[in-house]
Amino acid sequence: MTSAAPFGPPAELRVLGLGGIPEVRPGDDLARLVGDAIAGSGAGLLAGDVVVVTHKVVSKAEGRLVDLRGVTPSPFARGFAERTGKDARQVEVVLRESRRIVRMEPERGVIIAETAHGLICANAGVDASNVEPETVCLLPIDPDASAAGLRAALGERFGFTAEETPGVVVTDSFGRPWRSGIVNVAIGVAGLAPLADYRGRQDAAGYKLHVSVLAVADELAAAAELVANKLDARPVVLVRGYVPPTASPPGTGRDLILDPTRDLFR
Amino acid sequence: MTSAAPFGPPAELRVLGLGGIPEVRPGDDLARLVGDAIAGSGAGLLAGDVVVVTHKVVSKAEGRLVDLRGVTPSPFARGFAERTGKDARQVEVVLRESRRIVRMEPERGVIIAETAHGLICANAGVDASNVEPETVCLLPIDPDASAAGLRAALGERFGFTAEETPGVVVTDSFGRPWRSGIVNVAIGVAGLAPLADYRGRQDAAGYKLHVSVLAVADELAAAAELVANKLDARPVVLVRGYVPPTASPPGTGRDLILDPTRDLFR
Repeated sequence: MTSAAPFGPPAELRVLGLGGIPEVRPGDDLARLVGDAIAGSGAGLLAGDVVVVTHKVVSKAEGRLVDLRGVTPSPFARGFAERTGKDARQVEVVLRESRRIVRMEPERGVIIAETAHGLICANAGVDASNVEPETVCLLPIDPDASAAGLRAALGERFGFTAEETPGVVVTDSFGRPWRSGIVNVAIGVAGLAPLADYRGRQDAAGYKLHVSVLAVADELAAAAELVANKLDARPVVLVRGYVPPTASPPGTGRDLILDPTRDLFR
Repeated sequence: MTSAAPFGPPAELRVLGLGGIPEVRPGDDLARLVGDAIAGSGAGLLAGDVVVVTHKVVSKAEGRLVDLRGVTPSPFARGFAERTGKDARQVEVVLRESRRIVRMEPERGVIIAETAHGLICANAGVDASNVEPETVCLLPIDPDASAAGLRAALGERFGFTAEETPGVVVTDSFGRPWRSGIVNVAIGVAGLAPLADYRGRQDAAGYKLHVSVLAVADELAAAAELVANKLDARPVVLVRGYVPPTASPPGTGRDLILDPTRDLFR
């Protein structure tokens, strides 16, 4: 019942991890740096490309860094830190970035929190890797706005119409219940459909597809991570040749956050 | 603090969705069909490639299909089906494939179950799309064994040593708590490290990475889905150019199932 594609050249997607992004500092023009990396790679930017950027460089450019030396932990943060061997100031920042604690596990020092964005992730996205000592990095305030801003600037630089400008995905790596390890996901999206909605479409047997909304922006983020490298050597990735499988409209990262009323695992 | 890659040609990963896989039937030699598709694509098979296969064709070849006309639903299955408008025989099959119900939501007819493999997913992986009417498709009995068998056969056909034979990933699409849509994940793995373990490695600032085990097999599965297409037109995908980021040893899909004692969301 499969509507099989015939023999012949494969459908090809290329995932291009770009070099040439220097250490990003608050106030840097990230769009210029990303544009330079695209230009310097020789790959150029084509209509239909998707530009995938790890949030770390977005957050740094936007100044979303906290100097722990200026943070006074609350008694609650100190208590949790003492029981877990964590830095109380860092716990304090995690709590400030949280609008709800989903799980708190003192034995392993785990805090799973819901951020102001509605994202649910470890430490509310607060991260001390790949930043200066005594500093932590927060998520962008509005990753969708970050993605949209970067997209607009790239469109202008490379001479695209607003519609034809490649989509932009801003990513972070999240853990998942039930599964080991973390995977890259999309926290900000601009200019592409984050979900491919197959509902109502039929397979070759005429059977209506059941579970049929694919989180393609998360899959693009995951694909990009395979060349980006967790150590952030290549924080900007071009995905080339992606053909949206459905005519679903463009959306944002918020579309990837499950409506709480439909979530069985709050 | 980023150890940035220099300007220059990008690191490139190619994701090649193969055509030429016919409708698969119980007893078919899947390795031969996959080998034919690889040969027919002109892409060949190279050391370092990863062959990503949707479980649907694996399950079909292995005869993991159930004719609903031979299924007698239990009173419990009938009760749930009546309240949800579902096919009681299909609910019965879901229950038979489950070793534990994680959530059961009659209003929307949702069953999230843990399978015999330890996978937690909707309907215990039982799926009625892309199969004959009155038939449902189950997950392979042992997706790791399926992956290993396919890998061995491909290695033989294409003349690889056991060590150099490309890795194989068998996939399914799962929903996630908190996030919309489903994503492709690895349920069977052979010949590659499903997790890239960065623990103990330091970033350029000398800061030990915190959350530092990446589920790369799930990211490979996700990347493959972007060209595979939910309608299963291209159930076999070659990922070419993937460079494992750590020296983590080869493993199986079981490594991607979180140890229940470490899972805060059982």
